[in-house]
Amino acid sequence: MPANSMEELVSLCKRRGFIFQGSEIYGGLQGFYDYGPLGVELKNNIKAAWWRSNVYERDDMEGLDASIIMHRMVLRHSGHEATFSDPMVDNKKNGRRYRLDHLVKDQKEGVQAKVAELMGADPQNFAALVAALNANPAQASAALKDAGVRDPFSGEVGDWTEPRPFNMMFKTTIGPIADDDSYGYLRPETAQGIFTNFKNVVDSTSRRLPFGIAQIGKAFRNEITPRNFIFRVRELEQMEIEFFCTPGTDEEWHEHWLERRLKWWEDQGVPRGKIEILDVPKEDLAHYSKRTYDLMYDYPTLGHEEIEGIANRTDFDLGSHTKAQAELGIQARVDENHDSVAKLTIPHPETNKPVVPFVIEPSAGVDRAMLAVLAEAFTKETLENGSERIVLKLRPHLAPIKVAVIPLARNREEITSVAKAIKAELQGLGLGRVLYEDSGNIGKAYRRHDEVGTPYCVTVDFDTVGKGEDASLTDTVTVRDRDTLGQERVKISELAGWIREKLK
Amino acid sequence: MPANSMEELVSLCKRRGFIFQGSEIYGGLQGFYDYGPLGVELKNNIKAAWWRSNVYERDDMEGLDASIIMHRMVLRHSGHEATFSDPMVDNKKNGRRYRLDHLVKDQKEGVQAKVAELMGADPQNFAALVAALNANPAQASAALKDAGVRDPFSGEVGDWTEPRPFNMMFKTTIGPIADDDSYGYLRPETAQGIFTNFKNVVDSTSRRLPFGIAQIGKAFRNEITPRNFIFRVRELEQMEIEFFCTPGTDEEWHEHWLERRLKWWEDQGVPRGKIEILDVPKEDLAHYSKRTYDLMYDYPTLGHEEIEGIANRTDFDLGSHTKAQAELGIQARVDENHDSVAKLTIPHPETNKPVVPFVIEPSAGVDRAMLAVLAEAFTKETLENGSERIVLKLRPHLAPIKVAVIPLARNREEITSVAKAIKAELQGLGLGRVLYEDSGNIGKAYRRHDEVGTPYCVTVDFDTVGKGEDASLTDTVTVRDRDTLGQERVKISELAGWIREKLK
Repeated sequence: MPANSMEELVSLCKRRGFIFQGSEIYGGLQGFYDYGPLGVELKNNIKAAWWRSNVYERDDMEGLDASIIMHRMVLRHSGHEATFSDPMVDNKKNGRRYRLDHLVKDQKEGVQAKVAELMGADPQNFAALVAALNANPAQASAALKDAGVRDPFSGEVGDWTEPRPFNMMFKTTIGPIADDDSYGYLRPETAQGIFTNFKNVVDSTSRRLPFGIAQIGKAFRNEITPRNFIFRVRELEQMEIEFFCTPGTDEEWHEHWLERRLKWWEDQGVPRGKIEILDVPKEDLAHYSKRTYDLMYDYPTLGHEEIEGIANRTDFDLGSHTKAQAELGIQARVDENHDSVAKLTIPHPETNKPVVPFVIEPSAGVDRAMLAVLAEAFTKETLENGSERIVLKLRPHLAPIKVAVIPLARNREEITSVAKAIKAELQGLGLGRVLYEDSGNIGKAYRRHDEVGTPYCVTVDFDTVGKGEDASLTDTVTVRDRDTLGQERVKISELAGWIREKLK
Repeated sequence: MPANSMEELVSLCKRRGFIFQGSEIYGGLQGFYDYGPLGVELKNNIKAAWWRSNVYERDDMEGLDASIIMHRMVLRHSGHEATFSDPMVDNKKNGRRYRLDHLVKDQKEGVQAKVAELMGADPQNFAALVAALNANPAQASAALKDAGVRDPFSGEVGDWTEPRPFNMMFKTTIGPIADDDSYGYLRPETAQGIFTNFKNVVDSTSRRLPFGIAQIGKAFRNEITPRNFIFRVRELEQMEIEFFCTPGTDEEWHEHWLERRLKWWEDQGVPRGKIEILDVPKEDLAHYSKRTYDLMYDYPTLGHEEIEGIANRTDFDLGSHTKAQAELGIQARVDENHDSVAKLTIPHPETNKPVVPFVIEPSAGVDRAMLAVLAEAFTKETLENGSERIVLKLRPHLAPIKVAVIPLARNREEITSVAKAIKAELQGLGLGRVLYEDSGNIGKAYRRHDEVGTPYCVTVDFDTVGKGEDASLTDTVTVRDRDTLGQERVKISELAGWIREKLK
């Protein structure tokens, strides 16, 4: 029984230290978030699960960690300087700027239909309406006004400019002199670092086709209107694979990756039934793509939104970044490149002639993954005694805290020393974070650990140290199960093995 | 026998896929590096070792992962807007700009002494000379010219401007409108994200003094002259702890952290004997510091350079970022803050009254750590047969590849299938990357794995599959030890346990 609303998740995330607003003590910075003590563990666990599945468990993958700031030539030849933009409109009355599609979507009922009518567009097809607005800027400006499109800030009907493109890359000056050449971009996607290192990786690992390069890292997009908590942010983290294969085998690999990625989401607790596979219509495809599957997860409140895109990018990327384009038989339509110093080819596995490989790109967002994982794990239960509890039923490998070790009395050294020794032993298993927890009473501790998804709580009490009523319980502890609420008495000497088995 | 020169390391890093120049195919971007297939593993292993030691193995630490782009108010009140700068000078002849201290240090013998003479400064005390140059800009400009300080680019004596400060923060416009208010900074250190989240962490975890917050992440410094490979870069990664304690206990905690961090470096293969502890003289201390220990590692070629700083920052940081400064009895000299909306205090453990805690900050660089670890592990050995080998004697927990599984014949299915099954089993131990390696002949594979520090190579041969000359070797493999070069025949059924034991 996953979360019903985004509000429930946001509230839990803030209260329990998963996620905070960035720069909050100075009023916050829109579109930036900080991950707290539990958020950083959950995030690291998601990333580790992805790395394990895509790098460690395959024999055809290499990892990479490229820099965030990149040469402007990389983003020019990738096409981002020209096309990585969203249409925006300004309200001349107050100078506020909005992303066109967000502005229209956010209007009260009827307004969007009115805009569509004025544009002569189908009111049921939002994408087509946005396309029409972009294609006819002058008509769009009039339609927005005449339909009564209101400024979300002032609440009044705006005096809207014509839509025009706004490039979403963050730019910064590099080096001590600010001139026309001395700037770079914060990468808008990790992918470009993979393409620019293609030759370096091939040369240092002797890889042959097919093989992939995987990378996890930050990417930055200057969204006009960041929104929906960590769903649409300006600083995000991506997990991207560029899988290089022989032209002609690309469609088969595309299907392989679709299956494999759906399986991975399932293993993280995000079931197939909650993911709609959108076979992106030809007319909506990005210019580099031959075919793209968008995995649309059914988020609470938001509805179906993209959690991962799996694109067949053909030979567009390597073809765009390579030198000597003319002699390589590139299939995609690429712009001329006279800046690159590297030939981005690899021997064809059969003919041994140099070929620019095709690329399949499974690209997922860490933040969106976290939101989906939290949404699925979030559970409100009514217990037998009629009380209600919130519990995060996270898969154990994702849980921020694997085990909480709780001394029943915070000030009794014979109890705390045993608890600390148990904590150290369990920590040594290398399973993730084990918490020594002496912050409150046991009931509160259990509730807290339900809410943050700790699979097991281990309690050290007076019986454990031979000072209770039942001598047979000496050297045993109580282990409480998050999901069943069952409590079991386990011998300390057997505890590590017990926990290792359960968390496997 | 560590590396003799930086060149040896750089060459190995490039050849074997540890580190590449950033944006290399477009001529490279100075001060930016990409970590290749082995670099990303080594880097992740260093970070994991640090996180384990500082978060998991303690009971008084929380983790954090704050955003890179921060509100300009954060960097204003931290003092970075005003003081995070290096003095630079321009050569009027060609417009080139240099960091003053680097320029003077890089001159041919005698020139620096001449500059000192003209400035009336002690030629033996470089720091004092730089201070004198900064304090007397007009005299400095003349002294540089008269002493014949040459431009490293043109090789000619420059026409030098007066030194002036250059702020090293990268700035970028946030949101769709570029005006005076719409910018932020890429954080120059991860520390500030910890201070701004102090209250969030306390509120969500109920921590009491003493406790710390640990963070690993990217930081950005627009160095005027990046240099020395990954030692001085513009995009770096930090591992920082801010340890909050009661005023009066700070000196004791400072010593605790010095000891603990030296121990950690030792565990990564960087011995105490190679680290000089610099008790930074009062006059050289940063404005926020009461006392700082700089750990100076003896890098090949570079000599002693900072690998970690451990500073007693007093209550300067929280005192600078808090509201209601006047009523909190802040001890450090802080600028007025009317922008913060949060009171950054915590109950005093004895009096329960709100107190602004003191902070001990152990701050290490991931890239510099990697360079030191590589330098220490790098070994050139002459073997018994007179041949030479390069071997990276990395501690096993840091090795990018834990085990390489090598089928002796790449095209014999009975051999490759056994090798793949062994790879999968060993990978499942969760120790890190295990490589299925069929890229060349066995001798080359051994040499390659020596050079990248793989502790064990497992070879599957004809004997393994019962097709060799010795039937008693069926279902056994050869395990080769990186350091001893010893080879041992191990039963497949016992291999996982054998490896687990060795890599513990």
